[in-house]
Amino acid sequence: MEDLKKFEGGAAYMDGKYVPIAEARVPVGDWGFTHSDVTYDVVHTTGGAFFRLEDHLDRFHTSLDGYRLDPGVTRDEMRHILGRCVVLSGLKDAFVAMVSTRGVPTVYGSRNPLDCKNTFIAYAVPWVDVIKPEVQERGAHLIVAETPRISPKSLDPTLKNYMWRDFTRGMFEALDKGADTAILIDQDGYVTEGAGFNVFVIKGNTLTAPDRGALKGVTLRSVLDLAPELGLEPVVGPVTLEDLMEADEVCTSTTAGGVMPCSRVNGRIYGNDRPGPMSQKLKDLYWQKHREGWHMTPVNYADADNPFAVAEPA
Amino acid sequence: MEDLKKFEGGAAYMDGKYVPIAEARVPVGDWGFTHSDVTYDVVHTTGGAFFRLEDHLDRFHTSLDGYRLDPGVTRDEMRHILGRCVVLSGLKDAFVAMVSTRGVPTVYGSRNPLDCKNTFIAYAVPWVDVIKPEVQERGAHLIVAETPRISPKSLDPTLKNYMWRDFTRGMFEALDKGADTAILIDQDGYVTEGAGFNVFVIKGNTLTAPDRGALKGVTLRSVLDLAPELGLEPVVGPVTLEDLMEADEVCTSTTAGGVMPCSRVNGRIYGNDRPGPMSQKLKDLYWQKHREGWHMTPVNYADADNPFAVAEPA
Repeated sequence: MEDLKKFEGGAAYMDGKYVPIAEARVPVGDWGFTHSDVTYDVVHTTGGAFFRLEDHLDRFHTSLDGYRLDPGVTRDEMRHILGRCVVLSGLKDAFVAMVSTRGVPTVYGSRNPLDCKNTFIAYAVPWVDVIKPEVQERGAHLIVAETPRISPKSLDPTLKNYMWRDFTRGMFEALDKGADTAILIDQDGYVTEGAGFNVFVIKGNTLTAPDRGALKGVTLRSVLDLAPELGLEPVVGPVTLEDLMEADEVCTSTTAGGVMPCSRVNGRIYGNDRPGPMSQKLKDLYWQKHREGWHMTPVNYADADNPFAVAEPA
Repeated sequence: MEDLKKFEGGAAYMDGKYVPIAEARVPVGDWGFTHSDVTYDVVHTTGGAFFRLEDHLDRFHTSLDGYRLDPGVTRDEMRHILGRCVVLSGLKDAFVAMVSTRGVPTVYGSRNPLDCKNTFIAYAVPWVDVIKPEVQERGAHLIVAETPRISPKSLDPTLKNYMWRDFTRGMFEALDKGADTAILIDQDGYVTEGAGFNVFVIKGNTLTAPDRGALKGVTLRSVLDLAPELGLEPVVGPVTLEDLMEADEVCTSTTAGGVMPCSRVNGRIYGNDRPGPMSQKLKDLYWQKHREGWHMTPVNYADADNPFAVAEPA
């Protein structure tokens, strides 16, 4: 087995080799950088096991197909590479990314995407919370950004992408106003999502997630799956700005953070200015389910050549 | 003077050092990659002199300010670095890029852009034509993509960016239809621009460039400057799809290619299915002006420490 010391801090796979995370770098001429012609997905491990790994691989392949990217590795190879990155890093709680870029044209100066050799990059780094734990504790303070979400006509938000300029503008608006982060509405006034996270509202016994302008989040799917256990009816439907402002609770969800309750939107205080009771129950249930092994795939840290404890899932 | 052999193929500057272009790589965790939170500009040299270098530096600074990026180098330092990259590369005809990324957060896992150390990257590589010379010769075949240009409300097109997914979709539409490249219209039906190039139309004695949804191109500005010498009245105004289809001539412009005439749009053939006469004259005049030294800043290839032949322009 390889000397794992160099993988402390994170292990990556690129150009067919496993390298320390600091060496995982993209050429300045890769269209993944110069055209944001790239897709990705992120799955997490908790306590040494992947959560909903197959769902993330499903979505990654949907994104690859949607963008006409062929990373040149099979799904089985991807799964193996992701597992191996985790084992090499030694991380029990990890943020595990899979990325495919259009690559560099093989014909110098070509502008034809078919002349590019698409890449596959993967890496495991220590767990990250999109919204800091102490902020999650008091409930995040959101703003609704004045910058509208890029229209789905120009950019399909269900295909995961790094085209975040609208979110970045929203984030600056949030910082300027002393808030933690921003959510965006579309040009028709419907709530969409935030920078790397979904948003949903709870009103009475109904939990509603936006049906447009947003990624189909795996954590959100888990929330919708678990809602009935708490007596909530899950709905995917239009959410207006008014629905947001008049909700009993507002909550966000993402792989890098899980279920993250909010306590303020545009200065409006929800409940006791603390995470709402149903949001908190959803958060607790989400992590309880992890501990119970729900959708978990254990990692075999003893052998990087065989990174799954049992036979690799088909 | 350094051994220049390693800079054959291109010279880059990043992390404060000059490196061969192949070593210019961006960390996978740089937000310039993961959020497309990056801006850039591209200037060219022809025959060993920069063209409109100060105009490109002006625009780069406008983009930096618009995106709240601070690359940590002064304008004078940037100019020196760009010149030095050209000298190291030895290239007389070069494509010279300046790039600033948001960078990697200095606080692990932070989502606050203020926690990132912004970068400055520059490189000089051999001249590239966005539209191949042989295609320019017969006139480019364009399509008007079905994918609309991202709205300026979500993304300001006058601040140069790598958020090209809409253009990439347009390019695939063009390839699928056997065309060379695509131009995009906005959601109100007005002509905007193509992937890295401006477009303009000539009808009678009027040359009209779109007044919305497009970068303020330096080559386009040169075209507008030169038009009166050919008896054309330059106008910046709305250009509808109908204006495009009923024009006498359609032409594109960009740093990486110059003035590039078109001969077809959506299968409609203009003139003789060859570059239009005024477009060709504009192209010839543009290059003639280069040879005459118009807006040119010569490079001093003899001394990388002093890359401008005369005192560096203020």
